[in-house]
Amino acid sequence: MSVEHPTERELDRLARVRLSCVVEPLDRTLTPVLHGRPAQEAWEMVSDPGDARFARARARVESLDLDAVATLMRVHDIRVVTPGDDEWPELLDDLAVPPWCLWVRGQGHLRDLTRHAVAVVGARAATPYGTSVARELAGDLALRKWTVVSGAAFGIDAAAHQGALAARRPTVAVLACGVDRAYPQAHREMLDTIRDAGVVVSEIPPGSTPTKYRFLSRNRLIAAMSAGTVVVEAGLRSGSLNTAHHAVDLGRPVGAYPGPVTSSTSAGTNELIRQGAALVTDAAEVLDLVSPIGDHVAEAQQAPDHGLDVVSEVAKRTHEGLPATAAVGVDHLVREAGLTAGEVLAGLGELASAGLVEQTEEGWCRR
Amino acid sequence: MSVEHPTERELDRLARVRLSCVVEPLDRTLTPVLHGRPAQEAWEMVSDPGDARFARARARVESLDLDAVATLMRVHDIRVVTPGDDEWPELLDDLAVPPWCLWVRGQGHLRDLTRHAVAVVGARAATPYGTSVARELAGDLALRKWTVVSGAAFGIDAAAHQGALAARRPTVAVLACGVDRAYPQAHREMLDTIRDAGVVVSEIPPGSTPTKYRFLSRNRLIAAMSAGTVVVEAGLRSGSLNTAHHAVDLGRPVGAYPGPVTSSTSAGTNELIRQGAALVTDAAEVLDLVSPIGDHVAEAQQAPDHGLDVVSEVAKRTHEGLPATAAVGVDHLVREAGLTAGEVLAGLGELASAGLVEQTEEGWCRR
Repeated sequence: MSVEHPTERELDRLARVRLSCVVEPLDRTLTPVLHGRPAQEAWEMVSDPGDARFARARARVESLDLDAVATLMRVHDIRVVTPGDDEWPELLDDLAVPPWCLWVRGQGHLRDLTRHAVAVVGARAATPYGTSVARELAGDLALRKWTVVSGAAFGIDAAAHQGALAARRPTVAVLACGVDRAYPQAHREMLDTIRDAGVVVSEIPPGSTPTKYRFLSRNRLIAAMSAGTVVVEAGLRSGSLNTAHHAVDLGRPVGAYPGPVTSSTSAGTNELIRQGAALVTDAAEVLDLVSPIGDHVAEAQQAPDHGLDVVSEVAKRTHEGLPATAAVGVDHLVREAGLTAGEVLAGLGELASAGLVEQTEEGWCRR
Repeated sequence: MSVEHPTERELDRLARVRLSCVVEPLDRTLTPVLHGRPAQEAWEMVSDPGDARFARARARVESLDLDAVATLMRVHDIRVVTPGDDEWPELLDDLAVPPWCLWVRGQGHLRDLTRHAVAVVGARAATPYGTSVARELAGDLALRKWTVVSGAAFGIDAAAHQGALAARRPTVAVLACGVDRAYPQAHREMLDTIRDAGVVVSEIPPGSTPTKYRFLSRNRLIAAMSAGTVVVEAGLRSGSLNTAHHAVDLGRPVGAYPGPVTSSTSAGTNELIRQGAALVTDAAEVLDLVSPIGDHVAEAQQAPDHGLDVVSEVAKRTHEGLPATAAVGVDHLVREAGLTAGEVLAGLGELASAGLVEQTEEGWCRR
């Protein structure tokens, strides 16, 4: 950025970069003082050596090395996005305390990507159940051209990003450290891949490490840059519940996947549902929840016609009695569908003719 | 029953027994005509050979053999309970179409048992998850002196009865056949045990077999004789959902256990929650749901004091991070409790001193 003949716009951007470098997001002392002020005025306050309220930021102000930041930006191809920029997601303006700026890295366009976006988050210590449904949900959302926003953490977050990437769709990773860093380290390759078509974004300046408080303030960005937040699996103390609460604060819908009451990793999601979050079980339900009415109808209508519209009521009930993946016997269908064995056999015959079921060695299953 | 010098009461009872023997519960043709009439008047209508509306009941009226019914009652120690009897559960009067009478077998007192009762129902084709939580729920309800009402079917129903029996508390089984029968046959021994302190009850006369429609009308009795209905596990077509809908019709609360979205046997319960049923995860939550405020507080206060009131906040959070049964490492607790390793160790030390946790070869666990 040029600072020799700076415009107002450039001065604002420079002040925001400086504030991002010296003020912790949601700093309990500084935020109430700086909140709502123009960036240049806020920066002048923070850098005034005579103002005791800003003593905590003093060391950072004095050691601030914008050249070093600029070097990291050049080396890692990082851009700064501020309010008013084409790439700034207006959604962020709903936050009580928006970030001064965002540090963005990747080929995607942040505002375009977050125009139709869902946060998919959850426990680091996820179970195979959680990671598999997170991957499936994210893949289905991505196929319907919705962007998956998450935090790149172990467990559910990673599964969500991977589900979107597997569908060859861009995804947005919001970090609690500088976007030059890979956190966790084990996800370096995944973060590299995310940048190919999506973006990695943070309000923490390059070169910075994550801290507990940065995770908490990061969570509000995940919630803010999404039309709604879905928690797939979470213990009672999972940070993803914090993301869900930020979504509630923003008036955005929250969905949660149910799980066994015997799984501590579903205790937080089940509790969320008890508190009023919507129980969701698939991408269609998630989109019903987060999308203005009709917003995803065009996509939904493109789904393949399963031919169930043209079969009899008995065949439909027989089909509903078939599990999603497993094969079952006629007895099972009699129980599940509440039909007689004769009705089930007639239903199966009709469904088989329509190419909707097939008989395997294990029994009848959906095609 | 004496019919030589019958009182009005005895005539009413006799008419109810006769109606129970010849009119199917909720018969679509007869119910609208007979509903709300005094039993003797209803019986006179049904047994009038000139009334074409009752042609369907004619064969049964003509072949009705009360002596044979009386023999079955004597042999199987079955009693008839009618409105006004001490054992008649007033809860049944909330039904749009109450049964003419109940056939009751067992040492328990039906009205006393159903004064504080919860219906615990669910899929026949239950998973180990479902049967284990049903058994635990029923046992915990029984220990708090709440009666478990269910349908004696395979799967969840049987697990619910068994959980109550294991807690050495009476339970109520409502059958869709005569109470002289064991249905399913495999549950003959369980039904014998239920009668030791609880009751087996039906509106279907002795000697009768179950039919599909009798299961559906039976379900309304399960819902009606309980303060609320909990569905533990159910496919989308499970009859237990029918029981839940009867509870809704009666204005009684419905709870459902969440389950994995990948389990077809939880699809019905998850859908119930989506439709507004309360997500419940244990007996305490079930009682919060079904019991008037404070009604079970006395019981709850008798629960053992876990000593968590006297430990520090850090120790409490550490304790909450421990799963109910498994042992875990400190790393796990750091993640779950959102504490530092130092805090977790301090918390564990405090909890161990209070006798609340112990260290095993597998890690730390609750005591």
